[in-house]
Formats: sequence, C-alpha cells, structure tokens
Amino acid sequence: MLEIAFRPDRASDVPLPRQLADHVATLIETGRVAAGTKLPATREVAVGSSLSRKSVAGAYEILAGRGLVTAHVGQGTFVASRVFDRARASAPATPTPRAFAWPGLFARGGAVSLPASFRRSELGAYQFDFRGGRVDPTSLPLQDLRWAFGRPFETRARLQAMAAHIDPFGWPPLRREVARHLTARGIACEADDVVIVNGLQQAIDLTARVLVDPGDAVVIEQPGYFGAALAFASRGADLLDVDIDDEGLDTDRLARVLRLRRVKLAYVTAATQCPTGVTMSPRRRDALMALADEHQMPVFEDDYDCELRYAGPTLPALKARDPGGHVIHAGTFSKSLFPSLRLGYVVAARPLLERLVSARLVADFGTSVVGQAALATLLATRGLERHVRHMRRLYAARLAALDAALAREMPEGTRWTTPRSGVLVWLTLPPRTDPDRLHQAALARGVAYSRGDVFRRDGRGADHIVLSFAALDVKAIDEGIARLGAVMREASTGKGAERPDAHRSTAPKAPRARAQSAGARERTRFQRSSDAIR
Amino acid sequence: MLEIAFRPDRASDVPLPRQLADHVATLIETGRVAAGTKLPATREVAVGSSLSRKSVAGAYEILAGRGLVTAHVGQGTFVASRVFDRARASAPATPTPRAFAWPGLFARGGAVSLPASFRRSELGAYQFDFRGGRVDPTSLPLQDLRWAFGRPFETRARLQAMAAHIDPFGWPPLRREVARHLTARGIACEADDVVIVNGLQQAIDLTARVLVDPGDAVVIEQPGYFGAALAFASRGADLLDVDIDDEGLDTDRLARVLRLRRVKLAYVTAATQCPTGVTMSPRRRDALMALADEHQMPVFEDDYDCELRYAGPTLPALKARDPGGHVIHAGTFSKSLFPSLRLGYVVAARPLLERLVSARLVADFGTSVVGQAALATLLATRGLERHVRHMRRLYAARLAALDAALAREMPEGTRWTTPRSGVLVWLTLPPRTDPDRLHQAALARGVAYSRGDVFRRDGRGADHIVLSFAALDVKAIDEGIARLGAVMREASTGKGAERPDAHRSTAPKAPRARAQSAGARERTRFQRSSDAIR
Repeated sequence: MLEIAFRPDRASDVPLPRQLADHVATLIETGRVAAGTKLPATREVAVGSSLSRKSVAGAYEILAGRGLVTAHVGQGTFVASRVFDRARASAPATPTPRAFAWPGLFARGGAVSLPASFRRSELGAYQFDFRGGRVDPTSLPLQDLRWAFGRPFETRARLQAMAAHIDPFGWPPLRREVARHLTARGIACEADDVVIVNGLQQAIDLTARVLVDPGDAVVIEQPGYFGAALAFASRGADLLDVDIDDEGLDTDRLARVLRLRRVKLAYVTAATQCPTGVTMSPRRRDALMALADEHQMPVFEDDYDCELRYAGPTLPALKARDPGGHVIHAGTFSKSLFPSLRLGYVVAARPLLERLVSARLVADFGTSVVGQAALATLLATRGLERHVRHMRRLYAARLAALDAALAREMPEGTRWTTPRSGVLVWLTLPPRTDPDRLHQAALARGVAYSRGDVFRRDGRGADHIVLSFAALDVKAIDEGIARLGAVMREASTGKGAERPDAHRSTAPKAPRARAQSAGARERTRFQRSSDAIR
Repeated sequence: MLEIAFRPDRASDVPLPRQLADHVATLIETGRVAAGTKLPATREVAVGSSLSRKSVAGAYEILAGRGLVTAHVGQGTFVASRVFDRARASAPATPTPRAFAWPGLFARGGAVSLPASFRRSELGAYQFDFRGGRVDPTSLPLQDLRWAFGRPFETRARLQAMAAHIDPFGWPPLRREVARHLTARGIACEADDVVIVNGLQQAIDLTARVLVDPGDAVVIEQPGYFGAALAFASRGADLLDVDIDDEGLDTDRLARVLRLRRVKLAYVTAATQCPTGVTMSPRRRDALMALADEHQMPVFEDDYDCELRYAGPTLPALKARDPGGHVIHAGTFSKSLFPSLRLGYVVAARPLLERLVSARLVADFGTSVVGQAALATLLATRGLERHVRHMRRLYAARLAALDAALAREMPEGTRWTTPRSGVLVWLTLPPRTDPDRLHQAALARGVAYSRGDVFRRDGRGADHIVLSFAALDVKAIDEGIARLGAVMREASTGKGAERPDAHRSTAPKAPRARAQSAGARERTRFQRSSDAIR
C-alpha cells in the first residue's frame, strides 16, 4: 500500500485538502505511484499528516474529481490510470522516443556564459551579504507601496483602464511622471520621449537588438557592468575594452580606438561607474560627447543609481547636454525601490525610440501595467522622493561604517575605493591572495561578496572584490567585515595554503596596529581622485 | 511677459501646486521660455487657471526650490538660467553637433517590420473592437484581484521576501502553483520544471534566442500567429510555412519538408490554432510527435488559451505525451486575466530551461515579482479557476451571438469558422471585396478588426479578417456586426468602388432573406471539421 509522506503548509493560502490532493496528484502524475495502487484509509493519512479526517476525505474527493483516483465501495480508493496514459492507449503504438540531445541544438551565435554568481547554487542567502544588486528590504516604504499598489484596484474604472492598456511605449501616466522627474534633473523631455522597460537590463538588451549586427564594435568600460557586456555579446558584438581611471572612461584611449575602428555604440556609467564608483569628470564628458559627434557614435548612458549621491556635486547627465541626440539615457527603479520590481525607462531620439519599441513588441510586448500604475502614483505623490531621501542618509551612514570597518579590519596591502555615490566599493586584495580559497572561506563564514573577475573580461579582476553596503545595517557591516578580515588574514598567512608560492607573513598584528597601518596604506588611483571622500 | 496656459487635472494624484510647477518647469526646460522671462503675478495665474493664489505661490516655491526661477523682492519672479546651461558655461565651447543619422546605424540583421496594427496611430479606441488580443475588462474579478495584489504588502515580511527575490526561474510559490495547475491537466511537472516569463511572447523570443542561428529553419503555421514569426525572423530564422487545414498543421507536408531540410524547431498552436481556431486532431498530434522524434526536432507548443473551450473534448497537451522531452510548452495568463499583466510560463526539458534562463537574465533579469506573488495567491485560492469558469460561460454566449449575427448580417459569399475554443473567428470576405477600403469604412463606423494579411507571410491573407468576440457584450456584437455587414454590402455593391471589376450584386436583400441565404452558403473547410459547432 502507498505511504503518503505529507506535511501540511499551514502558512499557505492553499486549503489543506487541496494541498494534500496536489501532493498525491504529483506522486501519481510523475509516475512515482502506479495505476491500481490503493490509497491508505483516510484515518491513517489523517494521523500521519496531522490533518482532520474530513480534510483527507476532501482531498480524495478532489482527486476523484480530477479523474486521478477511483473509489470502490467497500474496497477503498485506487489510483486510476493516468489521463495521458488513457489518451495514449487510443493512439497508434510508437517506438520509445530517443533521449533528446538538447546541447547539439543550441544556437552557436549569441550563446553567453553567465557569471557563476548567477548559477542557482549561488542564489543562497548569507548572513553578511555584500553582493551587488541587493537593496535593504527592511527600509522599503511599506505603507506607501501598499497604498500605491492598492490604488489601481480601488475602482473598476482603474482596473479596466489597466486591462485595456496596450501602448507599447508604456503606461502614459508613468511616462509623464518619468518625464517630469527627468526634466527636473535637466533632461528636457516629454512623455512621448520615454519608453518604459523591464529594468535597465532590458534597455541595454533592446538597444543591442536595434543597433548591433554580429561583428559590430561596441565600446565598454573595464572593469565594467557584466550585464551590458553579456547583452552586446549575445548579439555577436565585437567588444572593445576601454579602461576606467580616476576620471572615468579614458577618452584618450577611446579617441585612439575610434581612429582605427568604426564603433556602433559606447556604453558608459557616467554618474557612478560600475563597479568602481568613479564619477566621470566634466572634462571627460565633454571629450566623450565631442567624439560621439565627430564619429557619429551613439552613447548609451546607464544612469543606474543617479539618485544615491552622498558627497560632491551632482553633474548633469550626459543626456542633459545632448543637443544632437546622440545619447540613449536609461534609468531604473531597481536601486531606489527594489530590483525585482523590474521597472526602468529609456529616453532617446524618437527614431531610435520607435525601433526600440518595435524590438520590445517582439521581445515581450510590454511591461506589466500594475507596477507601472503603482510607480506612477508613487512618483506623483512624491512617495518615492521621500524614500530616496531616506535611503541617501541611510546609505551614507553605511558607507562610512564600511569604510571605517575596512580600515580597522583589512590586512596590510588591501586597497579600496570610497565612492561619492552608489552602493559599491571596489577592493583590491593584498598580493598573493588566492581568490578562490578566499571566496570559499568567506562563504563558509557567512560572508558573500561579488568577485572582481565578474567585472573584467580579461581575467585580470581576480585580485579584486566588490562590496555592496546596500543590504546590511551598520552592525552587520561591522561584523561582516571583521569576519572577512579574519578570513583574509588567514589566507595571507597561508594557513591551509595549497599554493606552494603563497606569501607567508608574520602573525596577524593587533587591531590597533592594523588600523594605523591601514591609514598609511597605498591608495588606489581612485582614492586619489575626487571620488574619494577621504 | 510669459502667458501660462495651464489646466489643472483635479482627478490626478499630483497636488495642484506641483502640477502647475511641473507645467512651468516643462516650458522652461524645453526651451520654450527663455532665461530672464518674468513669471506672471500669482493673482493672474490663479484667475487664469482657476487655482487658489496659495496654490500658485506654492508652485513658484517649488520652482525656486528646483533652481528654475529666482524671486526678486519687489520685482517678481524670473526664469533662472537653466541647470544645464550653467553646467555648459564652464565647459569648453564645442561646435554645434550634427544631426544624428539614426537610420544608418540600425542593425541590418533581425530588423522586423511590425504589422500596421501595432503602429501607435492604430492604438485608438473603437466602439466595436473585434481586434484580437483584447479581453473584456468589465468582467475581471475586481475583488479577487484587489485582495491578491494587496496581500504581498500586508506584512513587512512578505514585502521583504519579494524585494529579496532574485531566482531567475521565477517566484517559487508561483512556479509551484503553475506546476500544480499543469499536473492537473496531465502535464507531469514540478516547480523546478517551470520558468516564469513576461507573457507567452517572451517564451517564444527566448526560445528563438536559445535555439536559432541565422539561416536555421523554423516551421511555422500559415495562417499563423505573427508574433511568433517576428520573434524567429528577428533571429534571422529561415521561416518554412506549413499550411493549416481542418485538422490543424498539415503533418504530411511537414514530413516532406523534413525530408529536404534540417528543421531547428516547429511552432504550433495545437489546442486552438491562431487565428483559425482549429484544434489539432489526435492523428496529426501523433504524426507530429513521431516526426519530432525521428528528426530530433523540438516542438514549441503555444498553449495560449487552452482554458477557453466551449465544445468537444479537451485533448491532452502535446507536452502531456512527451516522454522524450521534445516539447517546449508555454502558456499565459493574458487570456484568462488580461494581457497587460504580462505573465506566462514555460515548461521544458531541464537543459533547455537552463539555457532559457541564461538568455532571460541577459534579456531583462526576470519578471516583476509583485504580479507573480498576486497570481500565485489567485491560483492557490482558486480565484482564477472561478474566473475562468465564469469567462467560459460568458464567451460561449458571445461566440453564439457572433455566429448568429454573422449569419444574419454577412452578404452572400462570406464564410467563417465557428471555433470550439479560443475567442477568434476567421472570416473569408466575399469575392471582389477591397480589403483596404473595407477596413477604412469599418473603422469610420467604429468597427475595428484584425486584418487577415497580418497572419500570413505570402500576402494571401487579405481576403480574410479575424474577429475576436472577447471584449464585446452580446448587444455590442449584434450592433457591431450589423454595421460591418452594412459596410461589406456597400463594398460589394461597389458603391464608391475604385476597381472597375468590382462585383455588382442586386439591391441588398431583406434581413430574413439574407439569414436564409447565409444558412445555405458555402462552408469553409474549417466549418466542415469537428471544430465547427454547427
């Protein structure tokens, strides 16, 4: 007889009888229970699963209603032959199909290998999660969000307007609000200049679809945002790396590239370079725009966290000084609210915008309207503005805490940036650190970070890590960095080292001595720049 | 002095002072008002715009706060020099940029031309809207939706779980619910076999990204869903047309194609062929699966409106009889709820699913979590099931009404299908009808429909139109079809005809006579099939 190992989920919305029915149905449908098997008596299941007998009987009725079991009076309930077995019985006999060799079928062009950090095995939760792309979920404006998401369903008229929405540019009230928001920041635009997308990544991907043929050259920053590199690579782009220094993208190098090569697009994170946190200098911005004009090269401005600035002036966006219409400006609400909201926008010249909209109709038709309606309300009532002000203060304190903790805890030879905006710190590991061993040891202590090699295509990034201070409070930052420091010191003293050439230093210094030495340590070229608070 | 033509939107969430401030800001930022211009006195603006003086003063304060205007005591308020002008002043003078020649920059490969029906000019509202892709917004379950979308924001814990969600397969509770839903329909699967996407279109597009290299052959149905053809074409696929007849895809023809050509993928709408409404016969399904196995050809099963069946048995999905894992099964909630929700799913073999998820990380990272959470609740509490039951009854009545109205109103020589599922009727126009003239005349009478040529790639579809009965109640169907009939009779009597060979019939018959003649009219081959109710 069948044994039903079932645990009810009492926190679930699903009624208990249906939970049990679904559980048994899965056993049947996946072939783990053969047709003809007798189900245990309701009393037995009730005892074994701490359900009432009524619930179990209800589950059996649901199963019978689905045709999965049949009840025989006086004998009990039996698993029926499966729906698709019955259907198959009437079909002509076919030979057993061969296993399908999927890998041989995958497209050669555009196949991208994802950073390990996106593998499902790495999606786990860590107590001290310094990985990029996170926000602090505890700081979100619950009341405002509840209200904003409830509003579209307050009246049938609002729901009907949403359900009938098919404008591929996006929900008009949100486009109006985004235009107002951007105009206030100096980007003169109207609702019809705005296209709503599923986060900034889609803006990059659609731009790649619209502009890039296989073999076309696209300039990207190095180190730089891997999501952009992947999107362009997936269209077969020839990626041209241009280095980042303490003024942002090296436009002298870009000028040399442009003398040799027709470039289809340059991708930049001018406001807060990802991952170094550098703000592109006014001089470089002018140089970039002059090169764009000279070479008729579009510029993609990824303005992913323009709102989070803690120090120094906010420079106008490249798009705010773009009379020729060279700049494709894209932003997101992933950083100011949360990434899984998947809401972003693009502002660009109309001919390009129309192409983007054509490409997005083919890609997925449009962005879910409910989030758009809620965000429009949040922008109109300034709920988002209040939240961003709050986060700016919160993040400034966390950045200061992280900076202080690093100064206390990091071993000699460690360097890091102190950004004036954004939530990322780009840290250079001390010499002779084994990046793989460090990473494993840190995860084992509950400390997660983004590996630097994810942000470089030439393999040179392994001596860097990226720390986001967005998702952790000051206490967690202190504790997390203390643990990371301990792991790093272990790594640098060569404990358990597998590499014979590993550098063996003397015993770890006392905390005070370390803090002092940290103050005197070599500064990165980013720290020398205007982007360092210190 | 500046004249401010402002009309407050009192239904808006935006406070009135901010509305006015935004209006003036736009005038300033878009250069329509020069720096130094004096703003009118608050009293004047208050009178002209029916605002209180306090609101106008509030607007001026907001503008001053944004640095867009400056107040001079005793003189008034003046437009400041613009933020970006100020920034530009410190930059080196650059020559005026050349206009950017975007069209020369667009990618050659994968450029798709969209059906005219997606141009913004055609997005207008019509009183009698028979175009495809619509649902009836008045029938949506407002209370259930309000509750389901409110639930994720009921507690901070729920919001936090959503905000921290990064699983690229989709929100786990929704994947569980979709797996239960599909298992009940005979597709044995678990949550890990499901990937959530932004509607079915994204499932098609991601599949194209993962499987199709330029020049790869993809089999599509003709007539067929243009969105699939566009997605495959955008990857440079070589589209092979296979005709639809009264049993669905012609698998004899497919077999001949497969003897000549390696095919990367066959795309089918087996449950309810789009746009003819034909259900693929069991014999053809077996033949398709045998060919898929023989030629190691994946099959994309677009199951877009499996729920809406009014007559005849529901056949098991192709995926329910797919032991070899050849079938990529995709569904959507666009039809059972509403399209702008943008929620769909894919079930396929794990190796393919992992590729799809890699592609979707590059495309847009994932689907907005709030809609996923709400839908999971709706599925778990059977709110969606109730709604679908309701819609099935409603749509069955509308289909019957449309069928009867067509029989009453259509001129002789008109033929149409009567589907057993879905919401589309495929109508063949009488001979010698000018499709362009008919379309314009119908729109002028407030009647919109989808043109048949949208669903064919060979230009042969112009003698067909597609009527969706989803968005209109019985009364509107009656009136809309009466208008369409009048327009068609005008067209077929050659009134205002521009083609000298236009068929001129005798004067229109009385309604009763027309109804009789309609009963005797030639039936299409689809009507002869099991898919015709009559």
